[in-house]
Amino acid sequence: MKHDILDIAKRRGFFWPSFEIYGGASGFYTYGPLGALLKLRIENVMRDYFMIKENCLLIEAPVLTTGDPWVASGHVENFTDMTIECQKCGEAYRADHLVEEKTSKSTDGLSLPEIQKLIRKNKIKCPKCSGVLGSVYDYNLMFKTFIGPGKNKVTSYLRPETAQTTYMPFKRLYEIGRKQIPLGVIQFGRSFRNEISPRKGLVRLREFSQAEVQFFIDPKEKNKHPKFNLVKNLKFSVLTKNDQKGKILKINDLVKKNLTNEWIAYFLARSMQLFEGVGIDKKKLTCRQHKDEERSFYSSDTWDIEFLSDNFGRIELVGIADRTDYDLKRHMELSKKDMKINLNGKKFIPNIIEVAYGIDRPLFCVLESCLKKDKDRVYFSFPPEIAPYQAAVFPLVRKDGLPGKAKEVYEMLRDEGFYVLYDEGFIGRAYYRQDEAGTIYCVTYDYDSLKDKAVTIRFRDNKKQVRVKIKDLAGILKKLMNRQIVFEKAGKLVK
Amino acid sequence: MKHDILDIAKRRGFFWPSFEIYGGASGFYTYGPLGALLKLRIENVMRDYFMIKENCLLIEAPVLTTGDPWVASGHVENFTDMTIECQKCGEAYRADHLVEEKTSKSTDGLSLPEIQKLIRKNKIKCPKCSGVLGSVYDYNLMFKTFIGPGKNKVTSYLRPETAQTTYMPFKRLYEIGRKQIPLGVIQFGRSFRNEISPRKGLVRLREFSQAEVQFFIDPKEKNKHPKFNLVKNLKFSVLTKNDQKGKILKINDLVKKNLTNEWIAYFLARSMQLFEGVGIDKKKLTCRQHKDEERSFYSSDTWDIEFLSDNFGRIELVGIADRTDYDLKRHMELSKKDMKINLNGKKFIPNIIEVAYGIDRPLFCVLESCLKKDKDRVYFSFPPEIAPYQAAVFPLVRKDGLPGKAKEVYEMLRDEGFYVLYDEGFIGRAYYRQDEAGTIYCVTYDYDSLKDKAVTIRFRDNKKQVRVKIKDLAGILKKLMNRQIVFEKAGKLVK
Repeated sequence: MKHDILDIAKRRGFFWPSFEIYGGASGFYTYGPLGALLKLRIENVMRDYFMIKENCLLIEAPVLTTGDPWVASGHVENFTDMTIECQKCGEAYRADHLVEEKTSKSTDGLSLPEIQKLIRKNKIKCPKCSGVLGSVYDYNLMFKTFIGPGKNKVTSYLRPETAQTTYMPFKRLYEIGRKQIPLGVIQFGRSFRNEISPRKGLVRLREFSQAEVQFFIDPKEKNKHPKFNLVKNLKFSVLTKNDQKGKILKINDLVKKNLTNEWIAYFLARSMQLFEGVGIDKKKLTCRQHKDEERSFYSSDTWDIEFLSDNFGRIELVGIADRTDYDLKRHMELSKKDMKINLNGKKFIPNIIEVAYGIDRPLFCVLESCLKKDKDRVYFSFPPEIAPYQAAVFPLVRKDGLPGKAKEVYEMLRDEGFYVLYDEGFIGRAYYRQDEAGTIYCVTYDYDSLKDKAVTIRFRDNKKQVRVKIKDLAGILKKLMNRQIVFEKAGKLVK
Repeated sequence: MKHDILDIAKRRGFFWPSFEIYGGASGFYTYGPLGALLKLRIENVMRDYFMIKENCLLIEAPVLTTGDPWVASGHVENFTDMTIECQKCGEAYRADHLVEEKTSKSTDGLSLPEIQKLIRKNKIKCPKCSGVLGSVYDYNLMFKTFIGPGKNKVTSYLRPETAQTTYMPFKRLYEIGRKQIPLGVIQFGRSFRNEISPRKGLVRLREFSQAEVQFFIDPKEKNKHPKFNLVKNLKFSVLTKNDQKGKILKINDLVKKNLTNEWIAYFLARSMQLFEGVGIDKKKLTCRQHKDEERSFYSSDTWDIEFLSDNFGRIELVGIADRTDYDLKRHMELSKKDMKINLNGKKFIPNIIEVAYGIDRPLFCVLESCLKKDKDRVYFSFPPEIAPYQAAVFPLVRKDGLPGKAKEVYEMLRDEGFYVLYDEGFIGRAYYRQDEAGTIYCVTYDYDSLKDKAVTIRFRDNKKQVRVKIKDLAGILKKLMNRQIVFEKAGKLVK
C-alpha cells in the first residue's frame, strides 16, 4: 500500500524526519512512541532467538572508534563512493549513478577515470541547476571526528558496521566462551554511513540500527552446521549468482548443488523464519546470492534476503556472508596481536560467518506487510510479539462514572505489566485510533459492566468481541498473547 | 571492595577497555557478555517503570545531530572546559583542575583570564614532562563532524545529551499524546562528551548511555504531583544547597520547607526506589541539591542522587532538574516554530522537569554493591530482575552419560525462554564461575537423577540446595524469579 505508510507513520508517531523544526537533514529519522516500541520488540525477538536458540553471547561496543580498526578492515581505503559536485550550486551526486541514469547502462566495476570520461562524453550537467560538474573523486562514507583536544587528538570514525567492533575483542570472547568454537556473538547498535544524498526514508539512513551476528567457526566445518537437519527441507524463493531469475529451492539443494555452505544455508532459512515471525509477508521475500562482481573483497560468498516493497522496490534486510579469515587476519597483521586459536593440536585463525541484520528496514517492511484495509478502517496486523501496545481500555461513554471505572481496569492491567493505553471519546473513533496503532485488544467498560463486573474485548483483526469477567481479564489477555487460547474461545461471544 | 571489581569485570567479561588490541583510547569501554546483559536488564527495569507506572511515551532519536539544536540549547557556546596544552609533549589538561591541584583551592566560578593568571602565578608546569604550558582556551566538549560531502556539507555534532532530541519534536509528541499535560517522554541511547583525559573507567566515559525522562508540565502545577502522597513519608539522606553536611529528611519536608517542588521530590523518592530495586546499596545513596554556583544556567533547581563508591568516591547517578521553559523557548526563538500549547483557554510554554539517568554509572554501582565475599568465594548478589543469567546447568561429572542428560535439562530451560548457561568440569569450580557471574541458580544433574528424574538446585546467595523433579524445574524457577516462593520451600532441602 503505497504512500499510506509514510502518512500514517508520521501522523500516528511511528517515525518522522529528525530535526524537523530546523528543516531536517536527509537520512535521519526519529522513532516516535509507536515506532520505538515496535523497534524494541523486534530487537527483543531477534535477541531472544540468537541468545537462547543459537547460544550467542551479547556484546555492546562504542559507535565512535579509533582509526586503526578501519584501516585493518579496508574501510579507510575502500569505503568510498565516486562523487561529483556541481560547480555552480554545490550539490553533490554519485557520479556512477548520474552516468547510469543518462546512459541506462550498468557502471558496475568501472574505474574512477572511466566514469569521469563517461561524464564528459555524455555531457552530463547538474540535474538540479544545469551547472557544470567538477571532477569525480573518491568520497569516504565514514563520518570522521577527533578524540581529545589539541595536537595529540586522535582521528576517529563513527563505525560503518558493528562487525569490526565484535572482531577486535575476539580473543577475549573466546576465553569467556571457555575456548570453544563455533562461537556466536551478537551485537545491537547504531552504525553510520555518510551517504551523498539519501532519499529513501528508513531504507537508506545515514544513522541506522543493526543486529549483527558473528559466528567464529572452524573453516573445515563450513558444511557441518549442527542443526542443519532442522531446516534442510524448507523451501524458499532463491536467486543464485548464476541465475538471477529465481526459482523455489529446498535449503538442502543449495548445499547439495554446491551453491553455498551449510552455515549460510542454515541462516538463510532461520532468517526467513524470523522475518515471517515478526510479521513480514513471506511471499515478498527472496534469498539472493551476490554476483561475483558485486561481492565485497572480504567475502568468498554473500547472500541477501530481499523484500519487494511497494514503496521502495527491492530492500535488503539481511546480509549473510562467509567473511573467511580476512578480518581477523587483518587485525592480527595491524595490531600484532595473535588471533589464532589452538584446537585439537592445530593452530588456526577461525573463519567468520556473518549474519548482518538491519533493524530499520525490517521494521519498515513489517509496517508495509501488516498494513491492512477494510472498507471502513485501516489497521496494522502486528503479531502479539511485536505490537507496540497489547491493549487499550476505554469507557463506552464519557459520563455516568464509566471513565473512572474504565481507568481502574486500565490500572489493573498496568499493574500486571501490560503495555496498555487509556483512551476516551466516541467508541468508533477510539477503535479506529487503536487499529491504526496496531493495538491488539480493545477493552470497553460499558453500562452492563457496572452490574456484571465484565468487559468486552474486541480483537483488532476480525472485529469480533467477547465478554469476560474483569477478574479474569489479565489472565485471558496473557493466554491470548502466548497463543494458549484463540480469541473466539476467550469468553462469551458478543453478537 | 576496591579494585576487585575491575579485575573481575575484565576477566569474566562484564566490560573492558575498547580497541584494546590497538592500545585503547581512554573513555571508551566495551560491554562483554555479562555486562551487556546486565545493562539490558537495568534498562528494561527503568523502561517498564517509566512506561507502565509513569505513563511515559518512548522515543528514539539519532545521536548525530545538526548544529541548530545545540546553538539553541547553548552547548555550542557554553559546553566547554578551560583547557591548556603542554608546548613540549602536547598533553592537554583541564586548566582549572591543574590550579586546584596546585593550590588546593576551589576554582568554581573563575573566568578564563583568572585561571590563566593563576597558572602563571603558581608557575604550573606540565605534570607529565615538566614542559612549559601554553595559553588557556575554551575547548568545546562536543564531537564535531559533517553531514554530506563537498561544500554543502552540514556541521553536526554527536549529541552531548538526549534531552534536546526529545524537546525538538515536543509539538508532535503533544499531538500524539492527545494534547494532555503532564506529558512524560523517555529516551534511551548513547551520548558523547569529548572529555580532555578521562580516567575513571565506566564513571567518566566519552561515549556513554543515558535514560533521560522529560516531563512537560504546567508551570502552575509544580507542587501538584498526582501521586506525591505515595512517597511523601519516605525518608532519605539529603544535602540541600544551604546545608551540604546532610541529614535524614522526609520527602514531604523537602516540599514543606520549600527546598524543592513536588515533582522533583517525587522523582528523588522514585529514583531511590529504582536504584535499590536494581541492587544498589541504599546506605550509600544521598540526594544532593546543587549549590547556586554549580547549577546550570537553564535550571532553576537541580538535584543529584550520588553514590559513595569505594573505587571512585562520589558518583552522580541521576540529575533531576527543573529546566523551566528555557529549552522550549530557545527552540521556539531559533526555529520560529510555536512551542506554546493552548490549555483551558490559556496559551503557554510548558515547563520541563528532567529526570536524567546515566546507565553506565548505576551499572557500575550495582556491581560494587552486589559484590560479596565469603571465605572461599566471591559472588554478585544481583536481584532476579537484573542477573545476566538466571540459571546454569551442569553434570556432576563428565562421564557415564551425565553430560548428555544435563544438556537435555539445559535445552528444556532454553525452550522455556530462560537465559541459561551450560557448564562442565569440577563441580566446585563450576559453582565458583557461576557465583562470579552472578548466576542465581545452579542446576546439577547427578547419578541419582538417572533414577529419580530430579535435579539439585543450588541458590547463589546462601549455597543451600533443594531437590526438585525435572518436570517441575521450569515452573519452580519461574516462581522463584517472580518471588512467588522462597528458595527454601522450592523443593526438598538437600542436607
